[in-house]
Amino acid sequence: MYKKRSEDFQRSVDFTGEIDRLKSVFRHTYIFDGSRHENSAEHSWHLAVMAMVFEKFSNRPIDVLKVIKMVLIHDLVEIDAGDYILYTDKKDEKRQKEETASKRIFGLLPENLKDEFMDIWLEFEERKTAEARFATAIDRLEPIMQNHATEGKAWRENGIKKDQVIEANQHIAEGSQALWDFALSLIDECSEKLFF
Amino acid sequence: MYKKRSEDFQRSVDFTGEIDRLKSVFRHTYIFDGSRHENSAEHSWHLAVMAMVFEKFSNRPIDVLKVIKMVLIHDLVEIDAGDYILYTDKKDEKRQKEETASKRIFGLLPENLKDEFMDIWLEFEERKTAEARFATAIDRLEPIMQNHATEGKAWRENGIKKDQVIEANQHIAEGSQALWDFALSLIDECSEKLFF
Repeated sequence: MYKKRSEDFQRSVDFTGEIDRLKSVFRHTYIFDGSRHENSAEHSWHLAVMAMVFEKFSNRPIDVLKVIKMVLIHDLVEIDAGDYILYTDKKDEKRQKEETASKRIFGLLPENLKDEFMDIWLEFEERKTAEARFATAIDRLEPIMQNHATEGKAWRENGIKKDQVIEANQHIAEGSQALWDFALSLIDECSEKLFF
Repeated sequence: MYKKRSEDFQRSVDFTGEIDRLKSVFRHTYIFDGSRHENSAEHSWHLAVMAMVFEKFSNRPIDVLKVIKMVLIHDLVEIDAGDYILYTDKKDEKRQKEETASKRIFGLLPENLKDEFMDIWLEFEERKTAEARFATAIDRLEPIMQNHATEGKAWRENGIKKDQVIEANQHIAEGSQALWDFALSLIDECSEKLFF
C-alpha cells in the first residue's frame, strides 16, 4: 500500500526510536528545583539552548551549529554506557564503554550520518577545537549552576569537595573565560555557605 | 571579589535558570517504552536530533540551524501556558496564553536575543517558511511514532479517533511528503490493530 521506505529512511526511523532511551538515563545532578535527578536528554536540550544564549561569551569565534550538534548528541553513548559522575575514578572503563557504545548507536544511522555523528562526538571528546572547548564549557557549567541552585545537593551526596570541583572544571576557561569567572563565583558562594 | 557581571550576562544566566522549568511540563504523550509521560524539554531535544537526521527528507532546502533553533525553543511558552493536547478545542485560549508567556519568558533575555527568540518562535507558529513547515512536521511526527510504539496509549486515553489524527497532522506533508507518507503508514497500522 505504501511506497517501500528506503534503507536510509528506515535507518533514520530506527535511530529515532532508539535514542528515546536517553530520556531514561538519569544523571547524578538534580534539576534546578531539586525535586528529581536530571535525565541526559533534557540535559542535552538545556545545553543546546545555552549555546544559543552564551555564544558571544566564547573566547574564540565559533560555528554555533556545530556546537549545538555536539551538545545534542554528546551523551547518546550513555544509552549503553550509562552515566558516570564527572569525578569518577573509572575513567578508562568509561572511555572503553563509550567507544563501544558509539559504534553501535551511531552505526544504526545511514552511512553519511554515521560518519558525521561519530566525527562530531570525537571532536567533542577531544576538546581541541574552539567549538569543542565551548561545548564542553557549557556541559560543565550547567551542573555547577544546578548545584548552586540546590545547595550543592549532588556534590554533598557524592562527597565532592571544592578543590575537586575546581580541578575537574577549570578547563571551562579554555572555552570561555567569562563562563569560568561566573562558575568560580558560584563555587565560592557554595563554599562560603558551607554547602561543601 | 569578582568582576561585576554585565547586565547581558546576568540576563542570560537568569534565562538559563528559568527555562529549567520546561523539564517539569509534562505532555499528554508517552516516551517510547510507555513507562511515563514525556516532558517538553526532552521532547524538544528529540526533535532537534530528528532535524539532523531527517533533514534531507524536507520537501524544500532548509537552513537546518534555523530548524534546530525553532524546535529547541518552540515549547518554552509552556512554562507559563502549560501543555495543551493537539486536539484541544481551546485554541483561542491557548494562543492568548502563549502570546503572554512569550513576552515574559523571551523578555528575560538580553535585547538582541529577545528579538531573535521571539522572531523564531513566531516563524514556527505561523508555519509559512520552509524551515517552519519542516520543524512543525517533525513536531507532529514524534507523537505519532510514540503512539505507534505504545499501542496508541495517549490517543486511547484521550478518546482521539483516526480521522482526527489525520486531520490534525496532515500538514506534515507541507514540510515533508516522505514524513507524511511514513506517518500515514503508522496511523494505518494502529488503526488495523484496533488501537483506536
